Formats: sequence, C-alpha cells, structure tokens
Amino acid sequence: MFSHNKRLQYTVRVNECNPGLANLMLEQFGGPQGELAAACRYFTQYLAEDDPGRKDMLIDIATEELSHLEVIGTIVAMLNKGAKGRVAEGVNNAAQLYRDITGGGNDSHLTQVLYGGGPALTNSGGVPWTAAYVDTIGDPSCDLRSNIAAEARAKIIYERLVNCTDDPGVKEALGFLMTREISHQQSFEKALYSMQPNFPPGKLPGVPQFTNVYFNMSIGEGDQRGPWNKEPAFEYREAQVAVDGGDGAASVRIQPEDMQLLKQAATRQQSDPQSDPVTGAMLGKEEGAGLSQKH
Amino acid sequence: MFSHNKRLQYTVRVNECNPGLANLMLEQFGGPQGELAAACRYFTQYLAEDDPGRKDMLIDIATEELSHLEVIGTIVAMLNKGAKGRVAEGVNNAAQLYRDITGGGNDSHLTQVLYGGGPALTNSGGVPWTAAYVDTIGDPSCDLRSNIAAEARAKIIYERLVNCTDDPGVKEALGFLMTREISHQQSFEKALYSMQPNFPPGKLPGVPQFTNVYFNMSIGEGDQRGPWNKEPAFEYREAQVAVDGGDGAASVRIQPEDMQLLKQAATRQQSDPQSDPVTGAMLGKEEGAGLSQKH
Amino acid sequence: MFSHNKRLQYTVRVNECNPGLANLMLEQFGGPQGELAAACRYFTQYLAEDDPGRKDMLIDIATEELSHLEVIGTIVAMLNKGAKGRVAEGVNNAAQLYRDITGGGNDSHLTQVLYGGGPALTNSGGVPWTAAYVDTIGDPSCDLRSNIAAEARAKIIYERLVNCTDDPGVKEALGFLMTREISHQQSFEKALYSMQPNFPPGKLPGVPQFTNVYFNMSIGEGDQRGPWNKEPAFEYREAQVAVDGGDGAASVRIQPEDMQLLKQAATRQQSDPQSDPVTGAMLGKEEGAGLSQKH
Amino acid sequence: MFSHNKRLQYTVRVNECNPGLANLMLEQFGGPQGELAAACRYFTQYLAEDDPGRKDMLIDIATEELSHLEVIGTIVAMLNKGAKGRVAEGVNNAAQLYRDITGGGNDSHLTQVLYGGGPALTNSGGVPWTAAYVDTIGDPSCDLRSNIAAEARAKIIYERLVNCTDDPGVKEALGFLMTREISHQQSFEKALYSMQPNFPPGKLPGVPQFTNVYFNMSIGEGDQRGPWNKEPAFEYREAQVAVDGGDGAASVRIQPEDMQLLKQAATRQQSDPQSDPVTGAMLGKEEGAGLSQKH
Amino acid sequence: MFSHNKRLQYTVRVNECNPGLANLMLEQFGGPQGELAAACRYFTQYLAEDDPGRKDMLIDIATEELSHLEVIGTIVAMLNKGAKGRVAEGVNNAAQLYRDITGGGNDSHLTQVLYGGGPALTNSGGVPWTAAYVDTIGDPSCDLRSNIAAEARAKIIYERLVNCTDDPGVKEALGFLMTREISHQQSFEKALYSMQPNFPPGKLPGVPQFTNVYFNMSIGEGDQRGPWNKEPAFEYREAQVAVDGGDGAASVRIQPEDMQLLKQAATRQQSDPQSDPVTGAMLGKEEGAGLSQKH
Amino acid sequence: MFSHNKRLQYTVRVNECNPGLANLMLEQFGGPQGELAAACRYFTQYLAEDDPGRKDMLIDIATEELSHLEVIGTIVAMLNKGAKGRVAEGVNNAAQLYRDITGGGNDSHLTQVLYGGGPALTNSGGVPWTAAYVDTIGDPSCDLRSNIAAEARAKIIYERLVNCTDDPGVKEALGFLMTREISHQQSFEKALYSMQPNFPPGKLPGVPQFTNVYFNMSIGEGDQRGPWNKEPAFEYREAQVAVDGGDGAASVRIQPEDMQLLKQAATRQQSDPQSDPVTGAMLGKEEGAGLSQKH
Repeated sequence: MFSHNKRLQYTVRVNECNPGLANLMLEQFGGPQGELAAACRYFTQYLAEDDPGRKDMLIDIATEELSHLEVIGTIVAMLNKGAKGRVAEGVNNAAQLYRDITGGGNDSHLTQVLYGGGPALTNSGGVPWTAAYVDTIGDPSCDLRSNIAAEARAKIIYERLVNCTDDPGVKEALGFLMTREISHQQSFEKALYSMQPNFPPGKLPGVPQFTNVYFNMSIGEGDQRGPWNKEPAFEYREAQVAVDGGDGAASVRIQPEDMQLLKQAATRQQSDPQSDPVTGAMLGKEEGAGLSQKH
Repeated sequence: MFSHNKRLQYTVRVNECNPGLANLMLEQFGGPQGELAAACRYFTQYLAEDDPGRKDMLIDIATEELSHLEVIGTIVAMLNKGAKGRVAEGVNNAAQLYRDITGGGNDSHLTQVLYGGGPALTNSGGVPWTAAYVDTIGDPSCDLRSNIAAEARAKIIYERLVNCTDDPGVKEALGFLMTREISHQQSFEKALYSMQPNFPPGKLPGVPQFTNVYFNMSIGEGDQRGPWNKEPAFEYREAQVAVDGGDGAASVRIQPEDMQLLKQAATRQQSDPQSDPVTGAMLGKEEGAGLSQKH
Repeated sequence: MFSHNKRLQYTVRVNECNPGLANLMLEQFGGPQGELAAACRYFTQYLAEDDPGRKDMLIDIATEELSHLEVIGTIVAMLNKGAKGRVAEGVNNAAQLYRDITGGGNDSHLTQVLYGGGPALTNSGGVPWTAAYVDTIGDPSCDLRSNIAAEARAKIIYERLVNCTDDPGVKEALGFLMTREISHQQSFEKALYSMQPNFPPGKLPGVPQFTNVYFNMSIGEGDQRGPWNKEPAFEYREAQVAVDGGDGAASVRIQPEDMQLLKQAATRQQSDPQSDPVTGAMLGKEEGAGLSQKH
Repeated sequence: MFSHNKRLQYTVRVNECNPGLANLMLEQFGGPQGELAAACRYFTQYLAEDDPGRKDMLIDIATEELSHLEVIGTIVAMLNKGAKGRVAEGVNNAAQLYRDITGGGNDSHLTQVLYGGGPALTNSGGVPWTAAYVDTIGDPSCDLRSNIAAEARAKIIYERLVNCTDDPGVKEALGFLMTREISHQQSFEKALYSMQPNFPPGKLPGVPQFTNVYFNMSIGEGDQRGPWNKEPAFEYREAQVAVDGGDGAASVRIQPEDMQLLKQAATRQQSDPQSDPVTGAMLGKEEGAGLSQKH
Repeated sequence: MFSHNKRLQYTVRVNECNPGLANLMLEQFGGPQGELAAACRYFTQYLAEDDPGRKDMLIDIATEELSHLEVIGTIVAMLNKGAKGRVAEGVNNAAQLYRDITGGGNDSHLTQVLYGGGPALTNSGGVPWTAAYVDTIGDPSCDLRSNIAAEARAKIIYERLVNCTDDPGVKEALGFLMTREISHQQSFEKALYSMQPNFPPGKLPGVPQFTNVYFNMSIGEGDQRGPWNKEPAFEYREAQVAVDGGDGAASVRIQPEDMQLLKQAATRQQSDPQSDPVTGAMLGKEEGAGLSQKH
Repeated sequence: MFSHNKRLQYTVRVNECNPGLANLMLEQFGGPQGELAAACRYFTQYLAEDDPGRKDMLIDIATEELSHLEVIGTIVAMLNKGAKGRVAEGVNNAAQLYRDITGGGNDSHLTQVLYGGGPALTNSGGVPWTAAYVDTIGDPSCDLRSNIAAEARAKIIYERLVNCTDDPGVKEALGFLMTREISHQQSFEKALYSMQPNFPPGKLPGVPQFTNVYFNMSIGEGDQRGPWNKEPAFEYREAQVAVDGGDGAASVRIQPEDMQLLKQAATRQQSDPQSDPVTGAMLGKEEGAGLSQKH
C-alpha cells in the first residue's frame, strides 16, 4: 500500500515564474523518459516478480520515482503559478494574454488554455503520455537491461534540462533528480549481474552458426572494423541472401479449395504487362484537358 | 541508398496455413519489440551518429533488421495465404467464414477483414505500430544501452513464439531471427565498452552525496539486502523527506499583479470546510427520490 | 513524498489461475476507467491546487488509487501466475501452449507472449493506457465534476467485473474496490458543493438569450418533452439557422495581396460544372476494358 | 438521418486573418473538450439508449454539437483564409513564408504545411483527435454525469479562448458556443435527477463498512478536515494496510505442474544477494577504462 | 447547420442478437475505413473549400456519411441489444456471463465490459478511432484522389462484412452502404476530372530528368516489365547512387564555435576500434558466472 | 533481402544549420505523408501481393522510398548538426541555449531536448509516427488507388516545403524527392489501369437502384449542379429518409430472457418526464448558496 507525506523528497525553490521553462520540464513529467514512465516500468515489474531481492528493489525504486514525479510536477506548477491566475481570472488585455501564451519563445498555449496552467501528463511538445513507453516484458534479464537503459536516458534528459536554465533552485532540484538516475542505474546493474548467467537472455540458446556472425549489410566508403564486428568475438561476413543455404524463397502448403480461390482471385486481379492503358493521370495532364465524354 | 534482392535472408518454409498463428507472429512485425522498431531505432541513430565505427555498425544492423522484417512478414503472409483467397473471393457459406475468422482460438478478424490477410503493422493484439516504441535520444552511451536492452527483449519474444508452434519451417526461421538478436546484442555491447568512459552517461557528474545512496522507500516484510543496495557500492538509508535538509516545501516568487489574480481566484473558488452542503449524490440517493422543486 | 508498505490495502485471495479472467481485470489496471487513470487525474489536480481543503483531499484519494492499482494489479498477477511459469520455461507441447493462449475464451496471447504474464498497462483489449484518458483542466468546478463522473464510471466497470467471476476472493476484493469508488464520489460531491457558487463553472456568465434555450435539432416520431427541455427551466425552440439574426454566413477581411493569391488559387483549381469528363472509374469499368492508348 | 443547411447556426464575422489564433481555436475543434468529442459522446449514447426521453435529448444535443463543430471549424477556416492562398500558390520570398509559419507567436507550421490552412482534427498542439476522449460506457447514471462534467470543461475552454482575442466577431461566436454548454449542462442535470434513484450508479450496493469511510493516506502539515471527510457523511480513518483484517498478502492456488515450472524459473533466474558482481557500469567508469580482455 | 430526423436513411432489420458480429461491424463504425473517418474527411475539406461546386458536393456527401454512421451504429446496437440487458442487470450465473463475453468466437469483452453493449468508436479490434486516419491536406487534386481511394477501401470492407453474415436484414443494409461508396467514388472521380489540369497535383512541375524514370531498386528473379516501368511512359534504369552526379555524400557548413563543440563531443564519445573490451554480456555468460569483484 | 550503400541516392548539400527548418522537414520523415509511411505502405503490399508485375513494382518503389527516408533524414541531421554539439556538450550560457531552442520561430525544443538533435520519427509538430497512417487493405484495386493518392499528397507536402526555404541545396534535394512522387504516381496509375476491370473495386456489384444516385443532403444557397451529381452519370434526388421504402426504424428479435432483463433495466433506469427535479447545477447556482443540510 502506498502512503504519502506532504513534504517533498527534495525542497523546490523556484526563482520566478516561466511558463516556457515549465513546458520544457514536462519532458520529465509526462515524456517518454520521464518519471511516470519510470514508476510504471518498475511497478509493473514488481507486481509480477517472484525473486525476493529484485522484488524489494523494484518497489523501492518505483516508489522513489513516484516521489520524483511529484518533485518535477511541483517545479512545473511553480513555474506556471503566475500564469495560472491569469488564465483563471482572465485579463482585460486579450492581446497581452495572447502574446503571453504564444509569443517570445513561450509556446505554452496548450498548457495554459487546455490545462489551465497545471502540470499535464504530456511531453514538452504536448503529446499525451502512453504506456507504449513502458517496455516491461516479464523476463528479468531483459527488464533489468531495459531499466539500465531507461535510467541512462533519463539522466541525459535531466542533463539537457539543467543546461537550459539559470534558476539556481530549479538547477539544484534537477541535479538531485539526475543524480538519482545514476544511483538507480547502478542498482539495476548490480541486480542484473547478481543473476548468473544472464546472457543470452531467456532459456533457448542461439543457433551456433549465426550467434557470432556479423553481416556487412551496408557497403561503400565508411566500412569500419572494430570490436563489434572483429575476431575473436565475431566472424565478419559480407551480406548474403539465403544464409541457410536454401533458395531464399517462401513457400507454404495450401489446401486445394483455398488454392482454387487464390487462383480465381489472381485471375480476377491480374495485371496485363502487355497493355499500355490510358490512366487517370493522363486524363488530368494539361494536354488531356480537352478529353471529354461524348454522348 | 538501400537496394533489395528478391531472395530472402533466410528461406521460409511454412507447413500449413494458420491465421491464428499468423496473428501471433505480428508481434515481431509491428509490435514494440519487433523488427520495424529495431530497424527504425538503429537507422535514426545512424543518421545522427558521427563516430565512424558506430555509424557503420548501426547501418549494417539497421539494414539487417529490415531484412528480418521481410522474413517475419513473409511468414505472416504464408500463414495467411489460404485465408487471403477466401477473403478476396468470398465463400458461399457465411457462417463458415464467420467461424473461420472469429472462432476456435483464431481471433484473426482484424487481420482478415481489415487487412485482407496481408501482414499489418500492428502487434499481435491489433494495436498499430507507433514511433513511441523508438527510444533513440541521440547520446551514444544511452542509445547503445537501449539497443542492448531492445535486442534482449526481442530475443525473448522470439523464444516465446518458437515455443508456440510445431511447424518445423516456422520454428527454424524464428530460431534464426532469435539468434541474430543475440549476435546484435553482442555487437552493441562491444561498441558500448569500446567507448571509455561510458558511465555515468553524458557529461555532468552526479551530486556526490546522492550518487551511491539507496533509499528504502517500501517497508514491511520482504525488505531485502543485496548487492543492489549494500555496501560497498551503496549507502542504505531509510526513506526520508527533504533529503536536502530543507523544509520539503515548494516556493516561487510571484509578480505582484499575478499574486493579486491568484488571490482573487482563490477567493472565488474557495471551499468552505465548515459547511455541510446538500450534494448531487444526496439528491440521487433512494431516500432522496421524493425531493422535487416547488414552483 | 510517497512511501510504500509491502502489505496490500486489501488482502487478495485468488482461488485458481485464469489468464482469460486476468485479461478482463486489466480493464481497471490500464483501462480508461482504471486505477492508473484515477491516480493520475487526482495527482495532477493536487499539484496545481491552491485551496487547502481540496488539495489535501486530492492527494489522499490519489494515494489510495495508487494502492488500488496495486490491488488490481496483484489480482492480475495471481490469475496469471501459472501461465507465467509456462511462458518463461516453455513447454514440450507447443500445440498445447498455443491453445492455452489463444483458444477457448482465453484470448490472452498479448498478455502472455508480449508481457510474459505480468500485468500490462493496457485495457482488456490490449490498448496501451494513454494520458488522453485524464481530463484534468485546472478549474476546480470542472475537475470535481469530472472526478464525480469518473468515480461513477469506475464503479460500474467494477460491478460488471464482479458479475463475470465466481471466484469468492476475487469477488470480495473487487467489491472493496467498487465500494471505495462510491465513497470517493461522495467526497468529490461534498467538495464541489462546499464551493459556492459552482455553476456555471468559471467566471464568465452565459449570454442570457441562449442560456436556457433547448433546440429541437432532431425531428420525427420520438420527440419527447421532459424536465431537460421544459418550462420553467428551458425555453423550447425548433431548430433554427442563424439564431443570432444574421445571415448565417461566414466572413473575414482579407489583405489585398492575400486576396490576389486566393483568386489565383481558385482559378487554377476551379471545377468546370459544364463538363462531363471521362474519369478514372470509367476507364476501369468492365465496358472500358478495351480502352488503351495508341502510339 | 442527418441533413444540413448551408447557413450556420450562428453567423461568423472574423475581423482579420490570424493563423496563430486559428491554431488556438483548434482546441475546440479537434481537442479533448471540443465539439467533435461532444458530438461523438452524445451520439454513441443515443444509439444505445432505450429510455425515450433521454434518447431524444441525446440526439438533439448531439446534432447541435455537430452544428457547433461547423461554427468553430468555420472560424478556423476564416482565420486561416489568407494563409491558405499563400500556401497553395507559394510566394516568391521563402524567408517570409518561413517566418510567417514559424515566427512571432504564430506556431502554425503544422496547420499550414501539413493541412494547407484547413481546419484539422487536432488540438491546439497538433495532437490528432482520438476516441479515447469519449467516455461513454453505456450506463445512464454514469454517462449523464460524464456529460455534465464534459459540458463544464467545454465551457471553461471557451472562456479561456474568449479571453485570448479582441476580435469582436470571434468573441461573439465563442460566447454563443460557451453559453450553449451552460444550457446543455442544465439539460443533462435535469435528465440525471429525473432518474431516481441515480446514486450509487448501477445496481450493486457498496460494502457497508467501506462506503462512507475516508482514509487519510497523505500525512503531514496540510491535513484538512471538511465536509468531504467529516462526520456525519464520513468516518475519518488513518491509512491502514489490510483493512479487511487479513494479512494484506496475495495468494493463489497453483496447479502442481505449473508450480514445478515456476520453481524452475525461479531457480534459473534467482539473484544472489551474497555476491558483489562486477557490472557493466563498473566496466564503463572512468577508472575502468583500462579493463580489457586478454586473449 | 445540421439537423436530424429520427428515421434512418435505411431501415435496419436484424434477425437476432450476435455480439460477436456486432464487434466485426465496428470496423465500419470506428475503424480506419469507417463512416466516422469518411464524414470527418469530407467535412474538414468542406470547411476550407472555396470552389462552389466541390464545396456543395463535399457537404452533401459528408452529411450522408454521418447518416451512414447512424445506420451502421444502429446495426451494432441491435446486435448487442440482448447483451446490453445482461450487462446492465447482471446474471446469476457468472460463469455463463464470462463465457458469453469471451468464448466461442465471441471476443466481445471490450464492447460489453467497457462499453456496456453500446457501439464504441473503435475498430473491430478495440483500437480507438484516431484523426490520424483522416488524410485531408487542403489541396483539391490530392484530397479528391484521397477520397476516391477511401471510398474504394470502404467498399471492400463492406463487401468483406457482407460475406461474413447470413442475416438477411444485416446483409441488405450493408449492401446499401456498400453501394453508396460506389456512388460516392464516382462523384469524386467526376469532380477530380472536371478540374483541368489536375496532374501533377499542385503548382510546381517536376524536375524533367526524374519525372518519368523508373529505378529497378530490387533485383533478382521476379523482375518484371510492364506499363508501370516501360517505354514510352518510363525510362527504365538500374538503381544508382547519387543520381544527381555528385558524390552521394551529405555536407553542411558549421559555425566555428559549433564545430568546436562537435569535435569536443566526438572526442569524448569516440569508440576505440583497436580495443577488445570486456562487456556486460561477457560478464553474464555462463562461463563468466564466477567473475566477482574482490575487495 | 535489403542491402545498403553508404552513398545517398541524391547528394545533400546544406548551406547552414537551421534547427527550425529541420523541424519542418520532419513532416516528410515521420509525418503522415512522409517517406516512412510510403515505404511501409508499399512494403506491406509487396509481402501479400501475388501478381508478379505489381509485386516487383511494389518492392522497387518501397526500396526507393526507404532511400528517400535516408535523404530527408540526412537533411534533418545536417540542419541540426550545430545544435547537436551544443546539446551534447552544454554551453555556459543557459539563457542562450534556452532561447536557441524555444525562441524566434525555432520551436525545436522537442527535437533538441528529447532527441538530442537527431532526426525523430515524428511529424513537424512532434507527434510520433503511427501505422494508422498506412492504409493498405490487401485489395489491389484499392491499394493502388490509395498509393496514387498518397503520392499526390506527398508531392504537395514537398512543394510546400520547397516554398519555405531559400537554401539551394535543400531546395534541390527536395525537388528531386518531389519529382519522384510524380513518377511513382504514374507507375501506380499504369498498374491500376492495366488491371481490367478495376471498378467498382472488389467482386460484389452495387445494388443497382443506389449505384448512380446523388442525394442532396445539404440544402440552402450554394446548391450546385455539376458532373458529380448530374445526368447522365447520376440521378439527383433530394435527401430522403428510409430510401428502402421501409419505416426507417431499427428492429431486432430478442430472446425472451434477454427481453426480460432489458425491461428490468429500462424500469430501473427510466426517467420521469413529469418531474421537475432539483439538480446539482441548481445547488451550485449563486442563489442556491445558502442551501445546506440540516441534521
């Protein structure tokens, strides 16, 4: 069961309202690398996990991400606080309000007109959060790798946001949130490697003749060799069709009655490669303008 | 520039048509862990990448994933081939067609009625593919980790699909595709670790006092200690509000005119904690049925 | 700040695994009327709210909804627990596994193949949760009405789920969750009516001549009169164009240079109502089959 | 059956073209609180409704909302009319066109480049309309409450739009549309309360011991008491795990063969809490740079 | 302005309830080729159109499509009518209700549990309708072609639905709707070709040396020649990089300070092609299990 | 199987970085009329097509569209190259960075903060690409018409983009891409008309009495006659309900037990047209403020 304390995990001191900056911050509130995505990722894993150690870790971190969602959402709310009053009460000067919400690098109309200045579960471009961002698939060796990657991405987005503001209180709170992603990444790394073996993920081994092969699918100036395609880890091969040694074609056994229908459809829909038909485009070309039906 | 050879990278031999199984296979055609997502992930990274080694690797693998998209899509097309004729030509027995597309573990109505038996860019549940699945963010230490995780996830989905079919040709082709994910994961791992340092991702260091802290946010039976929250890597702390030492509150400086409007809004919208108002719900309760307006 | 206790708000006792029922339950986990939507709705309102009473209530209820999300997610996890092992370990009998996940009223392939048996943030049809479900707009007289309606809807979905299962433990837990929606609805009702006046929402009054008018836009047998369109509350009028007394047309002042371009476009794109052109469809009709270009 | 009259329900007189303002207006054309959402909400309820009074009301209002969709769409078309010619014909000065569609508080590039200046079924941020906005669930006591809330929200969005423009014709038409939401809200209120009882929604009663309880889930400074959590309507309780008196745990009966597989999976995937494994992150830390494989 | 008549454009006589068939029918209610998409496509074109003839035609057909939306939605409502009562009132036998909504080719759980048996704006797989289906772009020579294609697609979906049912009343109503798509397609064809010239669409001519070239991008057995790639309409060329005669590379002028930063980033993030680093995957391989950190 | 050559199909020479222009260009990278949509449309048709000529053409063009995706993505990458360094390395001047990404007609914050300056699979407004854009339905006479329309739309979007830039290298590359759409449209036209007959699409003929009827659904000033609704092609009729000659009503046979439940639900939920109930709105009106419950 969750409970809540009205004090934040980290004190938020915003120097001045700035709806444009608030919009940027939404990236970590309702964006793909944001805190809701993180909380949902770990919470769904927690529910299905049976290993006691990972289960405990997942809910600890999920709960902390919810608390971070609160911190970043509070930053947005503070940055929008001035705008909120203006939106609620209206102002005498519509032109001014219009400029406020659309002009001067402050493209916050969506946040203000639609959401009334509150933090919205969208990214910084206004796209609503979707669970398509959550890549939990219920295998710990995968999910932990996904978590490691997700923490790394979240760290970078915070770094970019830190670089966009001079407000010391905002910078400090973002710095805290960014740091926690580093810490969480390390926990997930430890959890992954304390499960041995963890590679390849799952149970089925790879087909030996293709497990350590690198295919050079793109040719031309710029071909490079490096540890990702070199011996001893890899056998480097030029791109090749039908690597199985077959004909590279596709086949399927069809029931006779279905075959009959397929043939019928093929006949009905066949193209005539010998024709040179008049087309709609030809009717519409400038020179075709005079073409009209006689009755 | 891309080019194409009409032979597949891997020969596809399907034993018999099975639209239900075709639907399952869509998971790796247009699903979140599928080949289109993989190709798009690496291709978008390729376009922005400047490191020659990674750039070459990304387009090699992106191109191979496109070729895998073709293999899995071809499997779907073969499994649906019988259905395709029936959908195109109609059958005399509507009840039979209805049963074929909805009954007996064969919930393929979407694929058949909407897509005419062709492979659709949806997951196995019919949800259209979305670029929200693509987690490229333009930082190589993150994107490589995302790629590692994505390959791990794709491997598992293929493993699950392999476990769902007895058709030897389908099993073999899926086994090839699954194996290539293992190989690609290894390439991305090599690429990540050949960039040193790669942790923490990005440029800004973490705030030292929070980089190696683990907060025990969830209490109760089930608390566990392990390498993910133990010394020497971590300092283990109980959950704590305002870890910065502040008051855990949020503050912002508001312009006087905005403050005026906020107060005005607050007054207009204030709730009266002393009241005990009649509510809409009370009007609608059984005993409130008689309550009607007198005129 | 959020914290967590590993004990649930309500004990979950599931009688036997049932992945098909698990899928139904997802409706309240990741569906539009589900607990994530509820928690997000109230939590976003909390962040922007300034009234102390409402603010406290919103976070109390948001936190409880998170705890309900945990209860319903746990039910899903229990119902899927048997399936989870089979998906993770594979089984020797692929045909059996295929039947298990697609047949007999158990269309849980998505949950099993894609999510490995874990609770997914989708509705019961596999559609990923989206923040488009969250209708917070930052005005308390609206948001409280939205909350009242949302609680009513959630109550009904729980009622329908209760009606679909005989498992006493599932029924009991669902009954608790359903009941809490009734309680929350009453709290939101009290909060709405303790803010006076609360109708019409917002600050601007309606235009008097249209505030109490009902237009009979649909004619024919079935026209009904009732309190929703009768005196004294309403003036009943037949549908009417241009109720403002104008001409019902649209006009705008255009800059001369823009007018010039519009005319140019209109001329370029004008249709000729006097023509009777040959069309692409005519080329493609059976009798048109012989039409071919001479060279 | 629907029919149409080319005159609008309300005359639209726009003073001058303004693509930026046109974009704002899209909020009520293709946004979540907009007229398409309203029309679809009531129309889908109409189709399934059996009560003659509600059925008639729903189609009357649905039809009016379609007519409002036409009014707001016409406003957008008028505001964009100048832009439309420029987009269609091109202008000699590309830099000017570029500035027109991206600069000066006029972020209308999407509307102009993609939609050619026509009204698009998106919100003001360019997000396509989705039926996820439509919260019809087929129970009248819920749907009417949803309608009441939806009308309240729509009223507020119109109010905010009115506050953003000085154009008297636009203000007047928006004022009409806003007013009609007030009127519709009143009709839905009358319809809800003319169905007695209507609370709690549906048929199943709540579990008595939890129907009037308020849990204080969030603690700390800011706890408030009010009619929403006070006697006589509510019993106020501190947050509590396992309110049912059980152990707050989750349980399910598993088939022996499934249990076997679960144990097998658990063993295969168990984490070792005693280990202190080297991790990927450690390999990537600055000090780890020298770590390389010996062959 | 729209108005409505309670009689349908076509009488609907459904022989018996069938929720599974109702679900199929949703394809044309809230699916991509369905009536809402059609109505929205033509209605948005109408609002922006200036040519009097096309404008009138667009609103005539948009209004008819709304009337078809009503017909198909009514069919869904009739097919679900029995289910509606069961969902609303509950039944004593939960197992029966569960089977009704999930089993035997009747995967209508979403429609019933979530939507209470009413017609939902989803496709037959439960995916909510999205305005992404509407391809209006504000150029008549394009939009008319889009309309022609859309009518053709809608015709086919109706044909497939007709083939899935034996119910004579449903068949007849679907036949009417299907026929109207044929008629509408013909109107759009006439409108397209009465605008001369209409090809190529828009104003800018193509670059002559590439307007009639066909590139053979895919090689191998299966290469075909036909009117789509043959003289006289086309020049057939083998795939070729850098068809402009340049080097096929990409270049851009960078500001010196930006170049400085790019170099800095490149250095920081460069991969070492000479290294052979230990990777995370290697740590996780079976043989790596013993690898642990010494302290 | 796909392969790749590192040289582009068309050389890209960008004069100077311009992130705002880069954002516009995304319209053809990840937008609805863009190259990914085109490639996916033709590739999915290829997989299911059996006619040898069409099959070959579809993969030729699909492969070329992938190569165009690379060209347009490369243009985006070049235009963003300066920004990429600044985002990766940070700059000392946060205010400057903030202005760079939000101000002066350069609303590229999403591309820069979220995607790090790389090309994202979104449209120019930041909406992620979705397979809902792909209108393949598996019938060649429809799919070819869809392709014709799609090429026409893509041509227009390119034309609009050409009109927005003065950069000669960008203009030239866009001109090439635009031209290829003209060429592809012509190929699809030839393919459509070399299949005879191709109208009406599919197999079922229309119902004769409704195949050539035009209904005048919208009345009022502006009614026009033209080839799209005139003899000889069409019979022009005024809008009419129940064109089948029936009563325009809907009916269905209901099982007795279901009828019983429907009646029960109707009784429980009936509205009372004679009542004039007090409503929630009335409780909330200014004059209702004093209304409070007595105990």
